[in-house]
Amino acid sequence: MFRVRLIDIKQGTYEVLLNIEDAEELGIHPLDRVRMSCEGGSLTSIANITDTLIGKGEIGVFSEAASALELKDGDLVNIVPGERPSSLQYIKKKMDGQKLAGQEIHAIVKDIVDNNLSDIELSAYVSAVTIRGMDMDEITDMVNAMVETGDVITFDKSPIVDVHSIGGIPGNKYALVTVPIVAANGVTIPKTSSRAITSPSGIADTMEVLAPVSHTAQKVKYIAETVGGTLVWGGSINLAPADDKIIRVEYPLSLDPRPQVLASVLAKKKAAGVEFLLIDIPTGHGAKVETESEARGLAQDFIELGRRVGIRVECAITYGSQPLGRAVGPALEAREALMALEGKEAPRSLVEKSCALAGILLEMAGVVERGRGKALAEETLSSGRALSKLKEVIAAQGGNPDISSDAIKVGQYSYDATAWEDGYVQMVNNAAVVQVCRTAGAPKDKGAGMVLWEKLGSQVKKGDRLYTIYAESKVKLERAKALAQRLVPVPIGGMLLGRVPDYRVA
Amino acid sequence: MFRVRLIDIKQGTYEVLLNIEDAEELGIHPLDRVRMSCEGGSLTSIANITDTLIGKGEIGVFSEAASALELKDGDLVNIVPGERPSSLQYIKKKMDGQKLAGQEIHAIVKDIVDNNLSDIELSAYVSAVTIRGMDMDEITDMVNAMVETGDVITFDKSPIVDVHSIGGIPGNKYALVTVPIVAANGVTIPKTSSRAITSPSGIADTMEVLAPVSHTAQKVKYIAETVGGTLVWGGSINLAPADDKIIRVEYPLSLDPRPQVLASVLAKKKAAGVEFLLIDIPTGHGAKVETESEARGLAQDFIELGRRVGIRVECAITYGSQPLGRAVGPALEAREALMALEGKEAPRSLVEKSCALAGILLEMAGVVERGRGKALAEETLSSGRALSKLKEVIAAQGGNPDISSDAIKVGQYSYDATAWEDGYVQMVNNAAVVQVCRTAGAPKDKGAGMVLWEKLGSQVKKGDRLYTIYAESKVKLERAKALAQRLVPVPIGGMLLGRVPDYRVA
Repeated sequence: MFRVRLIDIKQGTYEVLLNIEDAEELGIHPLDRVRMSCEGGSLTSIANITDTLIGKGEIGVFSEAASALELKDGDLVNIVPGERPSSLQYIKKKMDGQKLAGQEIHAIVKDIVDNNLSDIELSAYVSAVTIRGMDMDEITDMVNAMVETGDVITFDKSPIVDVHSIGGIPGNKYALVTVPIVAANGVTIPKTSSRAITSPSGIADTMEVLAPVSHTAQKVKYIAETVGGTLVWGGSINLAPADDKIIRVEYPLSLDPRPQVLASVLAKKKAAGVEFLLIDIPTGHGAKVETESEARGLAQDFIELGRRVGIRVECAITYGSQPLGRAVGPALEAREALMALEGKEAPRSLVEKSCALAGILLEMAGVVERGRGKALAEETLSSGRALSKLKEVIAAQGGNPDISSDAIKVGQYSYDATAWEDGYVQMVNNAAVVQVCRTAGAPKDKGAGMVLWEKLGSQVKKGDRLYTIYAESKVKLERAKALAQRLVPVPIGGMLLGRVPDYRVA
Repeated sequence: MFRVRLIDIKQGTYEVLLNIEDAEELGIHPLDRVRMSCEGGSLTSIANITDTLIGKGEIGVFSEAASALELKDGDLVNIVPGERPSSLQYIKKKMDGQKLAGQEIHAIVKDIVDNNLSDIELSAYVSAVTIRGMDMDEITDMVNAMVETGDVITFDKSPIVDVHSIGGIPGNKYALVTVPIVAANGVTIPKTSSRAITSPSGIADTMEVLAPVSHTAQKVKYIAETVGGTLVWGGSINLAPADDKIIRVEYPLSLDPRPQVLASVLAKKKAAGVEFLLIDIPTGHGAKVETESEARGLAQDFIELGRRVGIRVECAITYGSQPLGRAVGPALEAREALMALEGKEAPRSLVEKSCALAGILLEMAGVVERGRGKALAEETLSSGRALSKLKEVIAAQGGNPDISSDAIKVGQYSYDATAWEDGYVQMVNNAAVVQVCRTAGAPKDKGAGMVLWEKLGSQVKKGDRLYTIYAESKVKLERAKALAQRLVPVPIGGMLLGRVPDYRVA
């Protein structure tokens, strides 16, 4: 019997720590499995080995394993060498370039969800899928396995629609306009979305300026069925939980393997009870998808995968070479979306995209015939019905429905960048905008971000305001300003783009 | 400034733990890098994030980072977001199937040695090399990088020879006989070897029965130059330290990518100052290399790589379908090797292989002309000169040179397995022998293991002794016995191997 010492650290997996002498006695190497049993049951954990922290006869138990077996300091447990998870052999099979069977994929996903794979093993899986790929059969099995290993929302209404943007451009706040337009027309749209990982604001961060976004699956179902729509954070619901664990491992190497992207999106939506799904694929220079042919290929894959897992999918290929609208950052984006809903002056690109996507959703749901959706959406927006609906959603999620765009607080420190010569805006550099906004404090500081006063093709005169950076602290504003001066998010130039030889360079 | 809280756990990398609020404030995600600075210097670490263990304003610092900066509990450090190591982009490049340049491989190896890569990142590297492979240029760069990032032994004598077995068969104690034969002929052979990872005994475990095997590089050089040979544990010397860190990650998935095997072996030997290297490739059913053509391909790769890194390599393809000699397990193997050196009755296979390998080494070193080495080796063995030399090595390493095979203690609990019918030994199952010996306690219990009384092709009568299992505890003996009854390490049968249909199965 071994005496338990709790180690209050979350490792993301079931892990224990053994003294090296005990480990040798048991024939256990680092990262082997041990089976630990006690009155509370038994559990297979990953073994780490130490020659200092844990004495002979003791076992260090990290948080996840400790809470699974309800262990306390000083409890006695029995330890025997454990079996390696069978999914390891399927990961090797994928490394060898073989196709995985449905039950093999299910075993991998289940071990991921059950915290049975170490970082090393999970990374080998992600690497193998990145390099070897998966075919449509395997991706279908992946979706089903991801859905089965998490919670599922079942609606009493139909149709249930949703829209998902594969991301990659800053300022993509369209959902705050699109969702209420759709819901205002009697169609149920339980939108779940993510927080920013590498961007200045995810839809969930932006909505959080207006209302709480963490809700249970029951609450999401209730709000969607009564109000018609939600704008909640998907991370608060246990839908396809394998996804977050896989993303964690993809993040350090910026991996984003296509099969996993396809599976993640459809698994989350399938688990959320969605029947009709519109996928927004922002396309262009500086977006995740750079060419239209690539976008069309991706769209076909989404549609085919949807067919296989029982979701009717359509895709919208949208302009993605510069930010949507002018505002980037949670509060600035929420304010801009509200302005569009309130009928105030709002960027045409935001209104255009939001209505186009809402129109497609309304057509998919059968509310209006094909080709008439956008007009209905525009009418819903201009009539104020969409604004009323958003306020109902805000109230249902626990926010203040009396909010107006004027009342939204943005960062009190700001800096205006001006044109240093006459010319044209040559581009808006998505990556530079992201970096500057994050340096200014977004998404953590809700009021931080940028407003772009001029966009691609604008003619500007020396001294004209190009953009404003907002921050909640002076230090962050200065840092963001310095970065902007280096990265030049809004470059301008004349019609003469270059001269060869260019003596200025020398 | 953040207040340090030491976390007395070795993670194998530089790691810190931040409170989630601080992490969000700094814009740091799990596994991002942070740059930590204090009076003792500065260091880039991998960031982990917690919402419980570490409070706002605190930073948990794991052992490696704490000792690198000499931090104490309560010290104050400054934290800023850090850069990701540049080697991550080279790992991605290898995932994409591209060839890596020398400086890219060097950057990866250096980050591995410097503890800059997380398990996730290191696993992605190993997976990429496993799937994509490396060409001879890359493997050459890998050897050089592994040598440069560790210690190097430079001998004042020449030639320096060594022998390395790529392993895969139990009972492979040949080096205890080969090394003293070579050294007794005036050739310097500083043999470094590994401990068992998955086998019942590595050469280092076996030698440890006779003398300590952990020595510094200086001591290895001194012993080799004065006595002529060593039999030490390579792990005690910092030669090509990247290797152990890579092996740790390969272990859970039983990965063993060819490029890494080639690079590891030659890097360790190059760092040890070896000029002439004989590589033993045990080949056959149940060995690591199963066919002779595979063995010949591997041999060519070793020879070519040796040429590129300045080591003259020859390879010996040896019989590997069953254990070498009769004894398996540290003490049993040491005893058998001593018996061969003492001129007592010893298995022919052990004497034959040990002398064959010693003969090739003597020829490579130019002591004897090609074709005459084995005869010289046999003469050195039968004259007792090899035994005297081993005793010198034992004494130099701090063991008792008056040891004899009779005095070696083996497990006091034993079990004889006997033939259950008349017949022939159909095979000796390497994998089953390994499992049974490890279950009996090897390599941790030095006296545990097996002696095989009959080997492939022996004719046996019902009741004849087939093998004996030894253990140091009754419980382990019983477990090993039960496993042996299930795995049948020495199956026997008549000339009739099967009958169809076989009613016994039904």
